[in-house]
Amino acid sequence: MIFDILTIFPELLDSPLNESIIRRAREQGHIRIKNTNIRDFALDKHATTDDRPFGGGEGMVMKADVLQAAVHHVRNENGPGHVILLSPQGRPYNQAVAEELSRRKHLILVCGRYEGVDERFRANCVDDEISIGDYILTGGELAAMVIVDSVTRLLPEVLGCADSAEQDTFSRGLLKHPQYTRPREYAGQDVPDVLLSGNHAQIDEFRFLTSVRQTLERRPDLLPAVTFTPAEIKLLKKQGLYTEIIKQQAKKT
Amino acid sequence: MIFDILTIFPELLDSPLNESIIRRAREQGHIRIKNTNIRDFALDKHATTDDRPFGGGEGMVMKADVLQAAVHHVRNENGPGHVILLSPQGRPYNQAVAEELSRRKHLILVCGRYEGVDERFRANCVDDEISIGDYILTGGELAAMVIVDSVTRLLPEVLGCADSAEQDTFSRGLLKHPQYTRPREYAGQDVPDVLLSGNHAQIDEFRFLTSVRQTLERRPDLLPAVTFTPAEIKLLKKQGLYTEIIKQQAKKT
Repeated sequence: MIFDILTIFPELLDSPLNESIIRRAREQGHIRIKNTNIRDFALDKHATTDDRPFGGGEGMVMKADVLQAAVHHVRNENGPGHVILLSPQGRPYNQAVAEELSRRKHLILVCGRYEGVDERFRANCVDDEISIGDYILTGGELAAMVIVDSVTRLLPEVLGCADSAEQDTFSRGLLKHPQYTRPREYAGQDVPDVLLSGNHAQIDEFRFLTSVRQTLERRPDLLPAVTFTPAEIKLLKKQGLYTEIIKQQAKKT
Repeated sequence: MIFDILTIFPELLDSPLNESIIRRAREQGHIRIKNTNIRDFALDKHATTDDRPFGGGEGMVMKADVLQAAVHHVRNENGPGHVILLSPQGRPYNQAVAEELSRRKHLILVCGRYEGVDERFRANCVDDEISIGDYILTGGELAAMVIVDSVTRLLPEVLGCADSAEQDTFSRGLLKHPQYTRPREYAGQDVPDVLLSGNHAQIDEFRFLTSVRQTLERRPDLLPAVTFTPAEIKLLKKQGLYTEIIKQQAKKT
């Protein structure tokens, strides 16, 4: 997988892209990341990448011609790729989108800054527009890093068995069950007995039910997308949880 | 505002916290950021911060005792603060939460890693649990940076007039209107005439309507939280947009 990142602050990306799982994935050749400074494609001697908006108003808008020149450059270097603009107006990012992107070979991530980018760049050069959440960031750089990180860990061979992605929160749409590790007693609180029982069927049941309870309590909005097996439905009915789940699932729009 | 960030990868945070608006806000004394390495509070000679989960399963769980020792340390240094655990099980982060956090004086951001943290740390030491989106990251570090960035830019005096936060997307719940800057003609596409007219009432109306249309098309789920003025409602009715808005707003749960 190739990640091309277009930014006016390439230095900002240095440390997160050189630590932990991303560093290992780069060293092992699973991913290649190239940062390109948009400023290098400015057309005037002042290296201008943004200008005031037509129609007035505060802030600066990134210039379509400069952005386009930067995109053309990386396409010439690494192939056409999939051009993603990071912006608050994009489609909401989630684990399903991460999985979709992880099946591509080349992502070109364009980091917007300031008040936004010229609409005509969006219309001419952008294949996909993504927002990592309903909040405003100084620029798209952190959003690009979120995409690189979440996509990389889904690539085959990147995660070892010790940190498999399969049992993650969202892998089946429920929040993850609570976890406990040593010490067995901490701050007057014991680990739930069932986890020490060695009875794997009971442990699985306990984890499934705490996972469902946690999702019902904190994020009932996730439930419409979850499918339960007949055995799970039987268990949920026995625990008196199924009526509430059906009620939440009916809210699907 | 003081940001204490607790992590096992302090180096990962270096570059994003030393560039752009964050750097300026630090230099001008509006914010202070201190990274603390959780590993320094490990209790054994191997500096163990995580261990296998009780009940079996893949992955490693961060130890409650080590995390608690790290939190106690920064509380002794900088006061009690507001302890936030970054995790996919947290409440969803959005601009309203960013505004809420920007009114605090001291945030202690705990970056979870691996399969999660011991549930008893959460119960004993955590005031708030936040998720920046429904996707899985390698760790909480990028989430902590998202919070530092989005909160910092809301602090008084951090942003100049040139990049005011007031007209942002989400500041009133609608997606931002399209923006255009020079060149006036680009790739065969002109800037919309109204933006060159100098008529500010018409420009405001154009921007409001494109903003509403974009929100209807891309993120109708945002509309239930938006309040329109009587003048805006009149305009929306005239443009035939009001019926669809009412329909979307009725989906509020």
